[in-house]
Amino acid sequence: LDYQHVQVPFEITLWIMLASLAKIGFHLYNKLPSVVPESCLLIFVGLIMGGIIYGLNDRSPPVMDSDIFFLYLLPPIVLDAGYFMPSRPFFENIGTILLYAVVGTIWNVFGIGFSLYGICQVKAFRLQDVSLLHNLLFGSLIAAVDPVAVLAVFEEIHVNEKLHILVFGESLLNDAVTVVLYKLFRSFCEMPTIKSVDVFAGVGKFFVVGLGGVLVGLSFGFTAAFTTRFTKDIRVIEPLFVFLYSYLSYLTAEMFHLSGIVAIISCAMGMKRYVEANISLKSHTTVKYFMKMWSSVSDTLIFIFLGVSTIGENHEWNWPYICFTVIFCLIWRALGVLVLTFFVNRFHVNTITSKDQFIIAYGGLRGAICFSLVFLLPDFRRKKLFIAATTVVILFTVFIQGMTIRPLVDLLAVKRKRESAPTVGEQIHIRFLDHLLAGIEDISGHWGQYYWKDKLEYFNSKYLQKILLREYDQPKSSIVLLYEKLERKHAIELAQAGQLGHGPAHPSFLCSAFLCSSSDRTVITDQKLEDTLSPDVLDNMQEILARNLYRIRRTGPAYNRHTLPGDSEPTEQAKEILLLRHKSL
Amino acid sequence: LDYQHVQVPFEITLWIMLASLAKIGFHLYNKLPSVVPESCLLIFVGLIMGGIIYGLNDRSPPVMDSDIFFLYLLPPIVLDAGYFMPSRPFFENIGTILLYAVVGTIWNVFGIGFSLYGICQVKAFRLQDVSLLHNLLFGSLIAAVDPVAVLAVFEEIHVNEKLHILVFGESLLNDAVTVVLYKLFRSFCEMPTIKSVDVFAGVGKFFVVGLGGVLVGLSFGFTAAFTTRFTKDIRVIEPLFVFLYSYLSYLTAEMFHLSGIVAIISCAMGMKRYVEANISLKSHTTVKYFMKMWSSVSDTLIFIFLGVSTIGENHEWNWPYICFTVIFCLIWRALGVLVLTFFVNRFHVNTITSKDQFIIAYGGLRGAICFSLVFLLPDFRRKKLFIAATTVVILFTVFIQGMTIRPLVDLLAVKRKRESAPTVGEQIHIRFLDHLLAGIEDISGHWGQYYWKDKLEYFNSKYLQKILLREYDQPKSSIVLLYEKLERKHAIELAQAGQLGHGPAHPSFLCSAFLCSSSDRTVITDQKLEDTLSPDVLDNMQEILARNLYRIRRTGPAYNRHTLPGDSEPTEQAKEILLLRHKSL
Repeated sequence: LDYQHVQVPFEITLWIMLASLAKIGFHLYNKLPSVVPESCLLIFVGLIMGGIIYGLNDRSPPVMDSDIFFLYLLPPIVLDAGYFMPSRPFFENIGTILLYAVVGTIWNVFGIGFSLYGICQVKAFRLQDVSLLHNLLFGSLIAAVDPVAVLAVFEEIHVNEKLHILVFGESLLNDAVTVVLYKLFRSFCEMPTIKSVDVFAGVGKFFVVGLGGVLVGLSFGFTAAFTTRFTKDIRVIEPLFVFLYSYLSYLTAEMFHLSGIVAIISCAMGMKRYVEANISLKSHTTVKYFMKMWSSVSDTLIFIFLGVSTIGENHEWNWPYICFTVIFCLIWRALGVLVLTFFVNRFHVNTITSKDQFIIAYGGLRGAICFSLVFLLPDFRRKKLFIAATTVVILFTVFIQGMTIRPLVDLLAVKRKRESAPTVGEQIHIRFLDHLLAGIEDISGHWGQYYWKDKLEYFNSKYLQKILLREYDQPKSSIVLLYEKLERKHAIELAQAGQLGHGPAHPSFLCSAFLCSSSDRTVITDQKLEDTLSPDVLDNMQEILARNLYRIRRTGPAYNRHTLPGDSEPTEQAKEILLLRHKSL
Repeated sequence: LDYQHVQVPFEITLWIMLASLAKIGFHLYNKLPSVVPESCLLIFVGLIMGGIIYGLNDRSPPVMDSDIFFLYLLPPIVLDAGYFMPSRPFFENIGTILLYAVVGTIWNVFGIGFSLYGICQVKAFRLQDVSLLHNLLFGSLIAAVDPVAVLAVFEEIHVNEKLHILVFGESLLNDAVTVVLYKLFRSFCEMPTIKSVDVFAGVGKFFVVGLGGVLVGLSFGFTAAFTTRFTKDIRVIEPLFVFLYSYLSYLTAEMFHLSGIVAIISCAMGMKRYVEANISLKSHTTVKYFMKMWSSVSDTLIFIFLGVSTIGENHEWNWPYICFTVIFCLIWRALGVLVLTFFVNRFHVNTITSKDQFIIAYGGLRGAICFSLVFLLPDFRRKKLFIAATTVVILFTVFIQGMTIRPLVDLLAVKRKRESAPTVGEQIHIRFLDHLLAGIEDISGHWGQYYWKDKLEYFNSKYLQKILLREYDQPKSSIVLLYEKLERKHAIELAQAGQLGHGPAHPSFLCSAFLCSSSDRTVITDQKLEDTLSPDVLDNMQEILARNLYRIRRTGPAYNRHTLPGDSEPTEQAKEILLLRHKSL
């Protein structure tokens, strides 16, 4: 037995296997996941696993390594979030999201930090050695809402799109603030004296970290789109580029101390549109599927490890500090949401209702990011106290808030997500209004969101699409694309139901096919036909005939390891048809 | 700048990116890959990269780590090979393949080992310190044909299926022999004296290593199939199990010193059939796509690293030894193939022609496995000589043989792979003959391959399918499955061409739909209808109507992170239809 040789991959594979099997287990009992969020169940599994390991080895089970978390587990989840982000509600509410993410997080950090410092002054609690700076550092890591935890809970409760994007967008974009404040306070802790210059430098860093992340992400995203222009002959490695470039954007941002989360989200949102148009349908299915799969596994592993890491002797149980942390987290978040929403509502027509505000405040779940950050703290006397407080806050928010939010949403009758997709009529209406509002804004000189959206769309179709898309003949409108997608789906359903007619369905098609085939046979009548039919119709016919003629002949292309069976080769097809044509002439 | 933090994933990602970009580069110039095999081009890129690294750093570039190769790069390629292995030709020629793989490899090992020992006795070459055991050890690592190199070359030249499976199957199955002989000679090198018991133990090990690998692989394969029975509610993690279980089978086999390659191939071949039936169509596309992608990347990385590792100062250039190694490799392989084929042809009706024999001998390419094994050798005086000889043999076989094999195949007019897939008529004929021959064998008491195949098929449909398949109502014959697949393909093509009729296509369907809808409205006539129509037809109608009725109502299911948009929920559908039905009554 040579276990050591295979230990690392073997144990990783086993952990992933355990996580996946746990997932299957939950879904076998349909009632369980509808009552308890999956994240709670997974943490529970982790707690049991940790308990077993602790019982068997009689020492603390291994703690989730912060490096592993930030380098390998977090990126797939954020990539998935960014790639499938509904861009319209996101950009419509970007101002509010940024306000919550930046001002709200700063508010929470200082609120929690200062009030915990106040608690530390109470002699009975014996916490006088925790300095203000340490409290602020702790505040900076505990204040941020966690995207993984928010996703896990909010995707199961189906609140309306605006509410969802407000909480979720905040949890993603506050990463920039957290990174800056955490690093700032950590370096302050190690500095002998703090100059006011350093404080101002810290404020400047916000913009560098956030905007730098966006820049890094967008440049990698556009490079990815550009690369997929050239993958026509090797379809199999197309999905790879999506993953490679977005991961590189994350790593590059982290390398330059920028916000990796912001970078990977910008990358995903930037490339999605162009990559989708360039790569094949099967590649795109693979990309989507693998992204979901990967993020689902990461997510599962994170919650299980959270549970495992909770067991052990890393904690200092000073209950007053811990309880006040939980209370302050709740209070300051609630106050922050109230105050910020007050200002937001003054400038918007679509106000955020008080029910929504309650859910936003209540949905401020903490998760694995805090947990990893607290373990990354430099060693000092009270680190174990901070670890204990963080663990309790996470478990409190995930278990108590996570499990009660669904009944609360039901109780308050919070506006739900509309179940049906918008009809074509609605979509046309929305688009018409967009153009109209852009025109009005342009004329009135008010440079609002519609104006910028219109300009961006113009820039996109004028320059970006020409560079980044492979086949830039005529940009298909999204309604045409939707129609094609529905057609495809319908066709597959018909085929599955065995209702697919083998003859051509449209009488018009039958007619055109007949005309076309006769034109092929009797070349003399070509001129006459061209007189009666418009060139467009003729082209269309020829294409239909070519496709059908070829489909009969095209049987089993030779095996090649870089292609999948079923990939059609339109150029070859065109060539052969040309040859046949020449011969017949 | 914090490079160290992200170094490991960053560099891995960059290497993969380089490999993928190199691949795109080759395919941009269509002529290049048709003349030079991709493997040669990639080694060439690696040589240039290695030269640059060597020039910049002035020290040898990093050598491909054997652990990385065996644990991370090799498994995806072998999994891909096993999953897409054409099982019919493989099992039809299993005897010949095993003969080549086991006897042929042993013949080569001892042939090369002893004749190189003879060369070492020539005083002028100054090689007298290389013992017989070391020569045999070297022979054991240089003798084995490499699956990665063979795949890379043979997939581009499209020889006939039998020839392909003979060379490729041999390259896969000789792993068991290589593992045993290599470990045997290595332990002999470290032992003070060798007893005859050890030699016999070595012979016994063949069976343990090979059959053990098959057992481990099959058990993991069947477990994988069994697991996918329960993934109906979480489709997104279905592809994961295929990868996890096959990787676990490889690692487990390696852990017990069995043949990992044999294990992963048995696992892939064992689970393929059942997994395909259990998982969704999209999951299966993802599995296939990702397997191809992964193996393609691994393969690319291996060849690039081969090139990079060649540059440097790890070599001792004793030219006589190196040249004789190349010559002996060629001679012993040719002799081995001639002798073994002589015996094979005596027992078969379909003989292997002399042209085929030449290609089998000439296609004995060496690759990264030898390379990794030679670096795994314990340190001794002449290790660098062995490294140099291995490198030259690999480069010789990949470049000279790999580049000339295609012109030779053309020149000799070796029978090519048939371009067209067998027609339905042929398939029915083949299957009929199978059953007939199984019957003849059973009656005549001759337990040949058809008898066993028939028994296996019976066992499969009687027991295995019931345990491993989710929906075991009526086993669909492969022709029905093929028909469904073609229907689906046809439907998608129709949709893409815009020729999909929106009305139902069959007049019979129209009629049945009308009848059904009328029966729905006027319940009174139900009895009458049931009299005129058989229950089967009625069921069919109801299903068709239900599907169509529901399809209109089913618009945009609520978003959930564990499902992909477009996943249909047949149970919900059935429920709603039932409700509607009750209401109307």
